[in-house]
Amino acid sequence: MTDPFTDDPTMPQLRKDPITGRWVIIAEGRAARPNDFDPVSEGGRSNCSKSGKQQRPDCPFCEGNEHETPNEVIARREPGTQSNAVGWSVRVVPNKFPALEIEGGVNGHSDAIYRAMPGVGVHEVIIESPKHLVGTSELSVAQLRDVFWMYRSRLQTLKEDSRLAYAMVFKNVGAAAGASLEHLHSQLIALPIVPTNVLDEMNGSLSFYDRHGCCVYCDMVERELAAEERIVLETPGFVALTPFASRFPYETWVVPKIHAGHYEEIRDDQLDDLAEVMGQLIGKLESMFHQPAYNYIIHTTPFDTKKPGHYHWHIEVMPSLTKIAGFEWGTGFHINPVPPEQAASMLREIQIELRP
Amino acid sequence: MTDPFTDDPTMPQLRKDPITGRWVIIAEGRAARPNDFDPVSEGGRSNCSKSGKQQRPDCPFCEGNEHETPNEVIARREPGTQSNAVGWSVRVVPNKFPALEIEGGVNGHSDAIYRAMPGVGVHEVIIESPKHLVGTSELSVAQLRDVFWMYRSRLQTLKEDSRLAYAMVFKNVGAAAGASLEHLHSQLIALPIVPTNVLDEMNGSLSFYDRHGCCVYCDMVERELAAEERIVLETPGFVALTPFASRFPYETWVVPKIHAGHYEEIRDDQLDDLAEVMGQLIGKLESMFHQPAYNYIIHTTPFDTKKPGHYHWHIEVMPSLTKIAGFEWGTGFHINPVPPEQAASMLREIQIELRP
Repeated sequence: MTDPFTDDPTMPQLRKDPITGRWVIIAEGRAARPNDFDPVSEGGRSNCSKSGKQQRPDCPFCEGNEHETPNEVIARREPGTQSNAVGWSVRVVPNKFPALEIEGGVNGHSDAIYRAMPGVGVHEVIIESPKHLVGTSELSVAQLRDVFWMYRSRLQTLKEDSRLAYAMVFKNVGAAAGASLEHLHSQLIALPIVPTNVLDEMNGSLSFYDRHGCCVYCDMVERELAAEERIVLETPGFVALTPFASRFPYETWVVPKIHAGHYEEIRDDQLDDLAEVMGQLIGKLESMFHQPAYNYIIHTTPFDTKKPGHYHWHIEVMPSLTKIAGFEWGTGFHINPVPPEQAASMLREIQIELRP
Repeated sequence: MTDPFTDDPTMPQLRKDPITGRWVIIAEGRAARPNDFDPVSEGGRSNCSKSGKQQRPDCPFCEGNEHETPNEVIARREPGTQSNAVGWSVRVVPNKFPALEIEGGVNGHSDAIYRAMPGVGVHEVIIESPKHLVGTSELSVAQLRDVFWMYRSRLQTLKEDSRLAYAMVFKNVGAAAGASLEHLHSQLIALPIVPTNVLDEMNGSLSFYDRHGCCVYCDMVERELAAEERIVLETPGFVALTPFASRFPYETWVVPKIHAGHYEEIRDDQLDDLAEVMGQLIGKLESMFHQPAYNYIIHTTPFDTKKPGHYHWHIEVMPSLTKIAGFEWGTGFHINPVPPEQAASMLREIQIELRP
């Protein structure tokens, strides 16, 4: 029997669960991704490649291998150098195995139970260094600043595309955190709909705003700075804290001290500060654990929210030290064996010297 | 500064995130769990212990080592055998490293932002065989039936405790699925609140019921049996299908064909049928992948829901073949590289012979 939902298997498809409303992306092309990680290695990263070597002939993200990726979208480059050639410091390319495709309409298909729409969107990779580096501590603060500058640039551009409702910037490091290549990179996925988890945060913070007349993140920052016990570090503009209801051991949020809804509106001087706080924080994690696997995610306001008085952009950093098991899947609860107060205390004690 | 939220670090604590409302369980005691799995092994299960040996001296779940666990709650035993001694076929014990503790009140603490309550509840382990078996295919159908019988028995008993609102039965197999011991076992956690994900399913199915006048699962079963393409197998009383919006490759749901809200009301003859369909399904997965890591979870109606016309108990089986990465954490979306139609077709083709 022909099913209208499965007539074009080459195009990724967004499908909605009829009970919970959660979305999935069915993307067959993703199965063909290359993998730096031995399938039996775990937790941290592969042991076979050391970052001592500056370039690796088989790494598509290394300088000199620019032809191994799709054509670049944008790069920070030395004056006079050419696209898709050497001379860049941060380079953005389309993901070769995208979860979504930019070509195509957004008209969906539905029946009494099911709903699907074409998997239209943008899936990009931000390559964070021309050298084969695998630890964020190996980046200078200036290089890290360029990475955060690039996120801002991409969000500003993608916001202009009326088909897109949200862009999520995230980083996967290590096999346990879902990375398939070890060369330092982050990713960006822009979607035609606002994701469920983002909607939950929008609704939750709006509800708090309605009840208390202020932003829940602003309130939280003030309370945590006063109590101190969950503070990891502080700079003039940012605070890194382990959240009260941390899902994961050593989960840490980096939050601007002054209210700001959209990441893409970050000022140049704040970028310096953000590079410093993120470099320090990840340096602490990399110093505490050997090559830790982790994710970080920029949580920001949807493109079309004009007055985000209730929502506050921030970055959630989540080390992959525990496994998600049946209880977590079934309940939505997380079991965390390390109290955030203890995690903050341990992270505070580690001193990190960043390269300028 | 003393924080009223952290004054008793020995008791697990339920904490609520002030933005999303999601709960976490902070349980320090869990960090001390023993581990069968080499920290660098991945995906499947450890290679060092084969189930050829019937007992293992260092396995707390093996027959003869009953003193290694807390005192048993209940067991199916040969007549005349004693508690906490040999002679059992399925044995239920309190988890030695519980996420929750049964002693204690349910009075919480909250301020303008945060909310916490004592981690009161039940955390039990259902040991599925006296022998050191690690694959469900190694159990006979009769033994598997005893396991599903035991789940029913525990739910019926715990339902009588007025402090408990929900009990979740789940199974973690393999390190990648969050198991720490390989000897076949499942777990049960009973909670003083209905978990978020269960509430989402209750609300979603109630909304469908209000709009369409029928249970969404009943409708789905009818539609899938007619279309056939996502059916894995069928018995007189159950259907195993790969859901339309499958989050994971080879995710399969086992659903009763006739409407039923509460798992604990399953009839004896349905237990035979359920053991057959679950044995077949997991046998197929174990035949397709070498010692696959997976979870299964019984989704059932909260204890105090008297007329669950809208909700239909079922079991979700989820192989751990993909990693949860930043995109999934940030959005709540899942990226699945194997369309459920393809997964069902491959699972259908595998023939399994169960031991009676």
